[in-house]
Amino acid sequence: MQPVQRPGGRSARVRTAVHEAVLDLLREDGWDDLNIALVAERSGVHQATIYRRWGTLNGLIDDVVHERLSQGSPVPDTGTLRGDLEAYALRLADDVAGPMASLYLRAAMLGSRGPEGETYMLNRAVQLQAMLDRAAARGERPPTLLELLEVVIAPLYYHAVFFNRPVGPDHARSLVDRLLALCGSSP
Amino acid sequence: MQPVQRPGGRSARVRTAVHEAVLDLLREDGWDDLNIALVAERSGVHQATIYRRWGTLNGLIDDVVHERLSQGSPVPDTGTLRGDLEAYALRLADDVAGPMASLYLRAAMLGSRGPEGETYMLNRAVQLQAMLDRAAARGERPPTLLELLEVVIAPLYYHAVFFNRPVGPDHARSLVDRLLALCGSSP
Repeated sequence: MQPVQRPGGRSARVRTAVHEAVLDLLREDGWDDLNIALVAERSGVHQATIYRRWGTLNGLIDDVVHERLSQGSPVPDTGTLRGDLEAYALRLADDVAGPMASLYLRAAMLGSRGPEGETYMLNRAVQLQAMLDRAAARGERPPTLLELLEVVIAPLYYHAVFFNRPVGPDHARSLVDRLLALCGSSP
Repeated sequence: MQPVQRPGGRSARVRTAVHEAVLDLLREDGWDDLNIALVAERSGVHQATIYRRWGTLNGLIDDVVHERLSQGSPVPDTGTLRGDLEAYALRLADDVAGPMASLYLRAAMLGSRGPEGETYMLNRAVQLQAMLDRAAARGERPPTLLELLEVVIAPLYYHAVFFNRPVGPDHARSLVDRLLALCGSSP
């Protein structure tokens, strides 16, 4: 009896192996040396398969970025404004650190063109607004979405992405403190 | 009588023409279509000259970025903390808008590797700290450098570079207001 053919399963495995190879190579050597021959060697997937599926190195990198963006992650719902903001800030600080920083930069460079980037940002904005609305419904005094973006999220990106200096947990919490003080919610 | 030979002058003119061609092409078509043949055509400089001087397209782009970064611009000295901060914020908002946004992103991607990027950031930090020290010497209550970076500069980069949505003058001033309120300097 022949094994069941699962082209979807194999296709997904190939995609995962190739994506992981791209991330490993970025982590080790950065962008300069990245090429499809290296990705093929690292992933164990034939170069021809990679070219057939992704066309070019840029096409492959775009696919990695968009897959990471589309994974996203649910915004926190801890029951308090401070709890939600701290959980979100701590996760984002982690998320933009390390080799992902250059992928986010890459996404940002593509962002003004690609609809995927805009869809992601719009979805994320809607989710964050819902998080703030839940706080207001509980009688808390949440900041505006713009204040959250500018006071907490922008500095997290700034430190990690521009300066390759990720923000630690205490620093991330201090940004949340600043935001809560700004909207009159600090204790 | 032969004209005086000025290889430095010609070399500088070639560099300017090639840099301007890169910026024009970025402004018009973005990164995807940029290549040395197009830069040669636009600048009127032979491809062979460009390859000899810059080696690769990446080498050329790095040179453009580093030249823009090294030009910098003096930090303001208007006589008041608010005046300095507003002048700085307004200029930065302009500076990171438009086609320069992608050059800054490119610089950020190179930043963690290149010593030029770090030298630029360090020089800039020293200048900004001197601006804040002048305010303290006048008896004003300036923010810390970190507060200035996080509350004003990070959002300016965030809006312009990540979202291709430059910050207008009123918005830039509101960031300065927030910073002054934070350090107890607002009226």
